[in-house]
Amino acid sequence: MTGEYRNEINEVFAKVREKEPVVHCITASVSMGIVADGLLAAGARPLMTETIAEAPTMTSIADALMINLGTLSTEALAAIPASVEVANSLKKPWVLDPTAVGVAPVRTPLARRLLSYAPTIVRGNASEILALAGQQHAGRGADSTASPSDAHSAAEDVIKRSGGVVTVTGDVDLVMGKERRTEVHRGTPILTRVTGTGCLLAALTAACAVVEDDAFIAAVAATTWLTVAGEMAEQVTTRPGSFRTALLDALDGVTDAS
Amino acid sequence: MTGEYRNEINEVFAKVREKEPVVHCITASVSMGIVADGLLAAGARPLMTETIAEAPTMTSIADALMINLGTLSTEALAAIPASVEVANSLKKPWVLDPTAVGVAPVRTPLARRLLSYAPTIVRGNASEILALAGQQHAGRGADSTASPSDAHSAAEDVIKRSGGVVTVTGDVDLVMGKERRTEVHRGTPILTRVTGTGCLLAALTAACAVVEDDAFIAAVAATTWLTVAGEMAEQVTTRPGSFRTALLDALDGVTDAS
Amino acid sequence: MTGEYRNEINEVFAKVREKEPVVHCITASVSMGIVADGLLAAGARPLMTETIAEAPTMTSIADALMINLGTLSTEALAAIPASVEVANSLKKPWVLDPTAVGVAPVRTPLARRLLSYAPTIVRGNASEILALAGQQHAGRGADSTASPSDAHSAAEDVIKRSGGVVTVTGDVDLVMGKERRTEVHRGTPILTRVTGTGCLLAALTAACAVVEDDAFIAAVAATTWLTVAGEMAEQVTTRPGSFRTALLDALDGVTDAS
Repeated sequence: MTGEYRNEINEVFAKVREKEPVVHCITASVSMGIVADGLLAAGARPLMTETIAEAPTMTSIADALMINLGTLSTEALAAIPASVEVANSLKKPWVLDPTAVGVAPVRTPLARRLLSYAPTIVRGNASEILALAGQQHAGRGADSTASPSDAHSAAEDVIKRSGGVVTVTGDVDLVMGKERRTEVHRGTPILTRVTGTGCLLAALTAACAVVEDDAFIAAVAATTWLTVAGEMAEQVTTRPGSFRTALLDALDGVTDAS
Repeated sequence: MTGEYRNEINEVFAKVREKEPVVHCITASVSMGIVADGLLAAGARPLMTETIAEAPTMTSIADALMINLGTLSTEALAAIPASVEVANSLKKPWVLDPTAVGVAPVRTPLARRLLSYAPTIVRGNASEILALAGQQHAGRGADSTASPSDAHSAAEDVIKRSGGVVTVTGDVDLVMGKERRTEVHRGTPILTRVTGTGCLLAALTAACAVVEDDAFIAAVAATTWLTVAGEMAEQVTTRPGSFRTALLDALDGVTDAS
Repeated sequence: MTGEYRNEINEVFAKVREKEPVVHCITASVSMGIVADGLLAAGARPLMTETIAEAPTMTSIADALMINLGTLSTEALAAIPASVEVANSLKKPWVLDPTAVGVAPVRTPLARRLLSYAPTIVRGNASEILALAGQQHAGRGADSTASPSDAHSAAEDVIKRSGGVVTVTGDVDLVMGKERRTEVHRGTPILTRVTGTGCLLAALTAACAVVEDDAFIAAVAATTWLTVAGEMAEQVTTRPGSFRTALLDALDGVTDAS
């Protein structure tokens, strides 16, 4: 139930639009377009660079950092730890999206190692959160083969290791902090038929964490933002091409979480 | 004439949606978005990674592999042969899309060498198929300067070298196997005004080859799928921006090849 | 006032559609999609490759080169000077888009060095042009924190160093050559809510420079093309997702600059 957080969520929406936080994204090349356009639609600003030579500097001028491990390039691999260290030293929030961890031999140990860098929020589907906690390495690419409720104890383990908040996405999204948890019963399955909506959620979560110090509320607000926008888009169309367009329009239009 | 294959094609459409094959794509960065969204619209699942460290593992958990040589990065160059070997050793279908071969000094010899790895299906425009066979190196980038009928003997040569099927795209698409050939008289020129529709066809071909063992039928089905979707999209709009959206919608909507 | 150039501009529109110039783009991965689709919508043809092994060859078969420094990869860094040299030696126009120069430690000195390679046209926002001239290093990522009028003397400095034309984009776009200058009072702020419209303008400028030897007119024509298309798109929608689609449609539809 997110009704209890409605006022806080609406305030986050308004603050993102007012402050226009710059989010440095080191993200899968396949989803860069929707991540950047989605941030812009929500009122935030994207910044994308992944070389070790420039990424840490870009993190230093951004308001938050989002690390997504999809299509992890060798350049990004080198730049990620250095950029995360900059975010931490400047006390900027950062979000980890461990896309497709499990069998992938480079990103999986990297994602686990990054937990010790204390990500503000981790966003993954159930398979990814299970793999991150070392409890399972299922999943096929970015697709989950488990449901959020299966990932409860794995999420608790991730929270213990990272000290942060965890968002487990799925039919029902689960947001868990050290002492709070809530479920977001919003959205539509069509969100899974557009590439990069998970990456976009991670980026939006980073934007929300800039304007809301309570990371739990920031994670709930971002998840609500994307899923409510999904519902609005589904009212316009149920076909995936036009849904992608309508989703971006709705990210711009959402003002009320209810 | 594809009317003779109508039942087989319709069955391929249904099976892709039922099985949701995962297609590992090593593809041009410029077309990653439409390839991924197009696969999702058709009912398949994209997986994209191109480092030598992870790509072969990703091929091993996918159902098929698609290799597109557009904007060939140095990372992809290293990862392609290893990923193809994994596909072959696990008997997974793989599709070669020799984008912009001809004068390009790295991808051209690579594409020819890859023919000895027995691609299940090769997809290219006439200029690319001619260049692949060493008969001509015209073409400007991804654009063909020849027509499919010019590429007949080149396609036969490619079939001899690869042992597989060849799709030559153009005004009329030509699908050729060792003993069969057919023309697909469908589609619209607007398909050439959207980036990456050729790459998408290659990926869709790989998805079809997962659910249909007869590679010739798989190639005909994929070509029909994209071109019929193009016709449906053209009914909605003739402008390129909205056509791209309508094409994705139509890939989702097509159920009958007739 | 661009009314005085209306006939010249309209002629550029027609010539791009007639000649279909091939523009080799070495550009930010985040904007590759809109750059390629935008060129196609306008009637030009994109070509994208950024390895040192292939990019110079691709420049040699293209009609123009566009260098954009957003998300500058290590591969592109190596390929850019070599590709620019090919463009110059073959007397092909090339456009420099110094995205996000300022604090970024690699692209900033690179952009300044590239001025000595005599870009036909430089396209940047006010912050970028100021940074290029060494007068300021503000800006946050691709966003300007200055207005075009602030960048007057910086643009003059860039013109002196490059010998070419400069387009400073903003609320009002400013095009300056050695002896001429004009303002383009067209467009809509929604253009800044879609990723890559600046990169697309640079690519469109390169396409226009192929068909129009007067670089000043080419720059004015491209700026008018994009901004008038923006106005047309704004008539269709004010939401960013559907605006992106409508913008591409409008790039295809524009025939008259007035």
